[in-house]
Amino acid sequence: MENRVFNFSAGPAVLPEEVLLEIKEDLLNYKGKGMSVMEMSHRSKDYQAIFAETVDGVKRVWGLEEDFEVIFLGGGATTQFLMTALNFCPDDKVANYILTGTWAKNAYKEAKKAGKKNHIAASSEDKNFSYIPQAFSLSDNPAYLHITTNNTISGTQFRNYPDLPAEVPLFADMSSDIMSRPINVKKFGVIYAGAQKNIGPAGVTMILIRKDLLDRLQPDLPTMLSYKTHIDKGSMHNTPPTFPIYIVGLVMKWLEKMGGLEAIEKINEEKAAFIYNTIDNSNGYYKGTTAKESRSLMNATFRLPSEELEAKFISEAAANKMSGLKGHRSVGGCRASIYNAMPMEGAKTLAQFMKEFQANNPA
Amino acid sequence: MENRVFNFSAGPAVLPEEVLLEIKEDLLNYKGKGMSVMEMSHRSKDYQAIFAETVDGVKRVWGLEEDFEVIFLGGGATTQFLMTALNFCPDDKVANYILTGTWAKNAYKEAKKAGKKNHIAASSEDKNFSYIPQAFSLSDNPAYLHITTNNTISGTQFRNYPDLPAEVPLFADMSSDIMSRPINVKKFGVIYAGAQKNIGPAGVTMILIRKDLLDRLQPDLPTMLSYKTHIDKGSMHNTPPTFPIYIVGLVMKWLEKMGGLEAIEKINEEKAAFIYNTIDNSNGYYKGTTAKESRSLMNATFRLPSEELEAKFISEAAANKMSGLKGHRSVGGCRASIYNAMPMEGAKTLAQFMKEFQANNPA
Repeated sequence: MENRVFNFSAGPAVLPEEVLLEIKEDLLNYKGKGMSVMEMSHRSKDYQAIFAETVDGVKRVWGLEEDFEVIFLGGGATTQFLMTALNFCPDDKVANYILTGTWAKNAYKEAKKAGKKNHIAASSEDKNFSYIPQAFSLSDNPAYLHITTNNTISGTQFRNYPDLPAEVPLFADMSSDIMSRPINVKKFGVIYAGAQKNIGPAGVTMILIRKDLLDRLQPDLPTMLSYKTHIDKGSMHNTPPTFPIYIVGLVMKWLEKMGGLEAIEKINEEKAAFIYNTIDNSNGYYKGTTAKESRSLMNATFRLPSEELEAKFISEAAANKMSGLKGHRSVGGCRASIYNAMPMEGAKTLAQFMKEFQANNPA
Repeated sequence: MENRVFNFSAGPAVLPEEVLLEIKEDLLNYKGKGMSVMEMSHRSKDYQAIFAETVDGVKRVWGLEEDFEVIFLGGGATTQFLMTALNFCPDDKVANYILTGTWAKNAYKEAKKAGKKNHIAASSEDKNFSYIPQAFSLSDNPAYLHITTNNTISGTQFRNYPDLPAEVPLFADMSSDIMSRPINVKKFGVIYAGAQKNIGPAGVTMILIRKDLLDRLQPDLPTMLSYKTHIDKGSMHNTPPTFPIYIVGLVMKWLEKMGGLEAIEKINEEKAAFIYNTIDNSNGYYKGTTAKESRSLMNATFRLPSEELEAKFISEAAANKMSGLKGHRSVGGCRASIYNAMPMEGAKTLAQFMKEFQANNPA
């Protein structure tokens, strides 16, 4: 066997082993076509079929009909901080943001760099982003409200999404919890996600734009920053990240095989319960760093009694084939990222290790 | 064996089989690390080593010392049309361009979209971009002169590069002939290239910026459009396209093993000679579409006596395991792209097929 570790990295992150095996099988000769997917012209019939199947897979997994444009771009979610503001905030309107972490704040700040008026509708920065704000207050003339549905650094996640007046669309950076549970996609005007946590490798960002918003797209933008360019050209104005897009398609098929979003949600809840129950039953040895009701099912953040014990925990875990448990360098502590592709066995093994470590290393 | 075809696609294009075999070997478990390169955190020690080795490989192949910053971004070369203008053309200067094809013209037009003054220093549009202009004339206050060193659509290539006054840097989109022969890299202020023709798969763009130009970088740009962001953060402001970057590193090692740029130039000349000699010795059956002195060693473009024969040629070639010979949809005809990774055997096989096709299909 391949002797793989349990990879708790926050992203790029673990991919389904089945998907990796299929990539490997077809690496030099995709389905008898005589070449790798990496070597295919993006305009070839074979690659066009792969691309179409990826878009169809996204629509099937989310149960979408024809309400959304689906595009794939490079540049990461961070490029979307700029593009959402440029494309959807006219100069006489205001881009609204709920700040729940570093990335949400970067999105907010980028609107200003795009030359737009921006407004903080709510923020949890007062408590180091350890909770999801329940109330928010929009500016006058809001162009949209932008949220970050899951916060990898602090380990919080929106359970319910803000209700907005009909004319104000909800935009979401879903990079770190996309397709981890069923949601009402139609509630959102724009959804975007870097693929490298839940739906593929780094290098491609998926963007959904609800079609009733297309007439709000701002004109006269630089070519690559205009959503219109990419919608009109079906993501092929220039060469898209062809291989990452192919892998997103394989992940969609894997998700369907797993039983779709209802099934994956149950699995994700069960995996998270292993970790959070261990924390809650540790008599304070492990301390969660977020409000319980805001806990993320994707990234469980916790502290140990001392930084020395944290370092020992991370290094012993690594020696036991559990890697990537170090918290983000901006906050320290530990973090277990348990995205869709983390097997149940991984969460179980980690929970067991946490109990043993506590027993062997009293505070 | 893998039963692969000869892939003459203009890009994404053929990759070295050795590189693909190494990717395949390590796909689920990179060098015993227990995970795929795709699954590694971009900030992990293992991935940082891969990244550093890729940058070192680029420097070794080109014999660079510390004169250049080397960064890797998503978004394709097309995004660089915008970024070069935004970062290096102050409002009181003029961005200069030599137009040698569709992509060069797009770069020129994008400077205007970036809000900059632009100027055509030379153009071969008068003859449908079938040659490389020898003379050019700069505007007043030129910020830089931008060229496209190889033109995939028309099949032309700069053999010598423009000489400029010391204060005017030469910028080049080298997407389609990068590292296909030795060049004096220091002659250029900025070089950029989408990887998907000569140095890797689609999804990553390599950018070199000569360090003496860093003080010309324009301030106050959107985060992802600022070269300063990516230089300061070592290409890791956000998650870069990690897997494509890794493959660029493997291609660098392959290039070194092939004997470096001197060796690859000889091979490329020999491959191109197979095709061009066949054209020139066909008594006009095959017609090159460019001026002889401007012929590209990367993309050989040619016509047959009729469109019917062209269609038959392309389809019979495909049946004989030679794919991707159709010319760009904007110009028609045939095109054989023979980048670094096209084996000698591929060019030889195509030349032989061209002769047989001519014999069997008189005009």
